[in-house]
Amino acid sequence: MRIGVDAMGGDYAPAAVVAGAIIAQKQLLPEQHIVLFGDEALIKAELAKLNANPFDFEIVHCSEVIEMGENPAKSLTKKPDSSIAVGFKWLATGKIDGFASAGSTGAMLVGAMYAIKSIPGIIRPAIASYIPVGLENKFNLILDVGINPDCRPDVLYQYAMLGSIFSKLIFNNEEPRVALLNIGEEEEKGNLVSKSAFELMKDSTDFKFVGNVEGNDLFSNQKTDVVVCDGFVGNVVLKEAEAFYHLIKARKIEDPYFERFNFENYGGTPILGVNAPVIIGHGISNAKAIMNMILQTQEVIATNLCGKIKEAFN
Amino acid sequence: MRIGVDAMGGDYAPAAVVAGAIIAQKQLLPEQHIVLFGDEALIKAELAKLNANPFDFEIVHCSEVIEMGENPAKSLTKKPDSSIAVGFKWLATGKIDGFASAGSTGAMLVGAMYAIKSIPGIIRPAIASYIPVGLENKFNLILDVGINPDCRPDVLYQYAMLGSIFSKLIFNNEEPRVALLNIGEEEEKGNLVSKSAFELMKDSTDFKFVGNVEGNDLFSNQKTDVVVCDGFVGNVVLKEAEAFYHLIKARKIEDPYFERFNFENYGGTPILGVNAPVIIGHGISNAKAIMNMILQTQEVIATNLCGKIKEAFN
Repeated sequence: MRIGVDAMGGDYAPAAVVAGAIIAQKQLLPEQHIVLFGDEALIKAELAKLNANPFDFEIVHCSEVIEMGENPAKSLTKKPDSSIAVGFKWLATGKIDGFASAGSTGAMLVGAMYAIKSIPGIIRPAIASYIPVGLENKFNLILDVGINPDCRPDVLYQYAMLGSIFSKLIFNNEEPRVALLNIGEEEEKGNLVSKSAFELMKDSTDFKFVGNVEGNDLFSNQKTDVVVCDGFVGNVVLKEAEAFYHLIKARKIEDPYFERFNFENYGGTPILGVNAPVIIGHGISNAKAIMNMILQTQEVIATNLCGKIKEAFN
Repeated sequence: MRIGVDAMGGDYAPAAVVAGAIIAQKQLLPEQHIVLFGDEALIKAELAKLNANPFDFEIVHCSEVIEMGENPAKSLTKKPDSSIAVGFKWLATGKIDGFASAGSTGAMLVGAMYAIKSIPGIIRPAIASYIPVGLENKFNLILDVGINPDCRPDVLYQYAMLGSIFSKLIFNNEEPRVALLNIGEEEEKGNLVSKSAFELMKDSTDFKFVGNVEGNDLFSNQKTDVVVCDGFVGNVVLKEAEAFYHLIKARKIEDPYFERFNFENYGGTPILGVNAPVIIGHGISNAKAIMNMILQTQEVIATNLCGKIKEAFN
C-alpha cells in the first residue's frame, strides 16, 4: 500500500507534515509506505532536523505549491508541477493508493472531480465529518459538510447511502442508522427538499432510515449513527460546534469530553463518491492532525471504501 | 398598558404562569396591568397558594385549553373559548396591548396570522432568538428560527430589516450591523438563495449590511449584531446551541457564561411582522421564564416595536 501525502499542504507545512509523517510511519505495517509530494530539499531538511531516516519515505519532487488564496479551478492547470497536481496524477495512474492533503480544499476538490472523477451513478460527491457523541469515545457521521450547498432530494438519498457505507466500514456499525437532519421529528416537518427526501428515504432498502433528527440530537447516538443534510446546513452545524469548542477553551474549561470537539485532531475527511481515496485535512493541522490524516487514509484504503461504494451504486 | 398572558400555556401551567406573573407584577409600573386568560378557579387557587392579592390581576375566564398535541390550524376554531383564542380576540379588539403564551407555538402562530395578521408589505413574519455573545452580558439576534423553512431572497431581505429594528429598539444598538449566515465570507459563497440575498442586501440603505458570517461567528459580536438566515438553518443552529448547554450541564460544568445558553431564561420571542405584540414563550417555562416573558412583552409594547416596523414598511 502506498499512501500519498502532500508535504506542502497546510499552514505549518512542510514542517508539520514531515513531523506527522514520521510518527504515522511508526504505526504503519512494513508494506505500508508513505510517499511525500513536495520540495525535495525542504522535505529532506525537515527529516534531518528530526533525525528521521530519509529512506523510510519516498519523496516525489514537485517544484510548485498551490497557495491557499489561489483560484482552485485554475490552480491545478496553472501549476502542473505543484504537489497537489502531481499527487493526483500519481493517484489517477495507480502509482499511489490514496492521496491526502491539508492544503487548499478547493484544489483538492477540483483534483478529485477532474483527475479521479465521480463513481458512475453518483450525482454529487460529499464530504463528511465526525461528531463526538455520548460520553464514550464514539462518533456520529454527518454529511455533506460543504461541497453541495444546494442538494436535491435524490442527492440527499445518495448521501444516506454513502454515510451508511462509511459508518459500516470505518466505525464498524453493523447496520448503521441513518437520519435526516430536520426541524421537527414528524414526517411532514421541514423545507421542501427535506420533505421530499423523507419521502424517498422512508421505504429505503439501501440503508436503515430512522426518520428525522433535530439540532438537539446531533451530539447523541440515541437515535442515529449517520446524519444527512445539505452542505449549507452541514457546514453551519460543523462551524458552530467548532465555535463552541473555542468558547470552552476561552473559559479555560478542561474536560476530556469537550476535547473531542477539537476537530483538528481528526485528521481529515474523505471525499465520498470519487473513484479513489482522497482525504482533505484541516489547514491548521499540527503534526498530530497530519498523523491522523495519514492513518485515516490508510484505513480508507485498507477497508476498500471506494470499492464498496462502487459496488453499492453498480 | 394591559399585558395579556395565557395562564394555561406551558408544561407547568397554571402554577408557573401565576407564580411568574406575581413576580413580574412587582417590577411593573402602577399603570401596567397583567390580564390573565384561563380557568378562573384554578388561577385564583394558585394566587391564594402564593398569598398574592387577586385584585392585582384581571382574570378573564376561559373554559377551554388548547393542548400541546392538537392541530394548531384547527384548535383555535374548535376551541373558541380557549385561553389562546380569547387572548387573540382581546388583542385584535385592542382590549389588551400585547399577548404572551408559553403554550402551543403552532396555535400562537395561527392566531397571530389570522386574528392579528401580517403588517402590510411584509411577505412572511419571522420569529427571532437571542444568542449570547462575548463575555459581557450581550446578545446577538438571529432570525428566522422556525416559521419559514423555505425563504426567498426578498424574505431574507425583510428579515434583515426586522432584525435591525428589533436590535435598535430592544438591544439599544444605534446602528445595528446585519449579516447573512453563510458558508464562507466571500460574496460568491453560498447556496442559490443566500447568493441572491447577498446581491439584494449589499447596497441596502434600509439597514447596515456587513456581509456574510459563518457558523463560527455565531457566538461573537465582533462582526455583527443581527444574523439573518432561513427558518430551517436558524432552527438547527438554535437547537444545536441548546444541545451544547445540556452537554455542559451533563458534564457538571458550572460557568456563568454558559448559563446564558439556558434559553429557558429568556422568556420568549416576539413574532416580528404582525400588527400587534405577540410573544411566544418556551413550553418548559418555569416561573422565572414566565416573568421574563411578561417583562419582554411589556418592553415590546413600550418601545412600540410593531409601530416602528409598520413605519419602516410603509
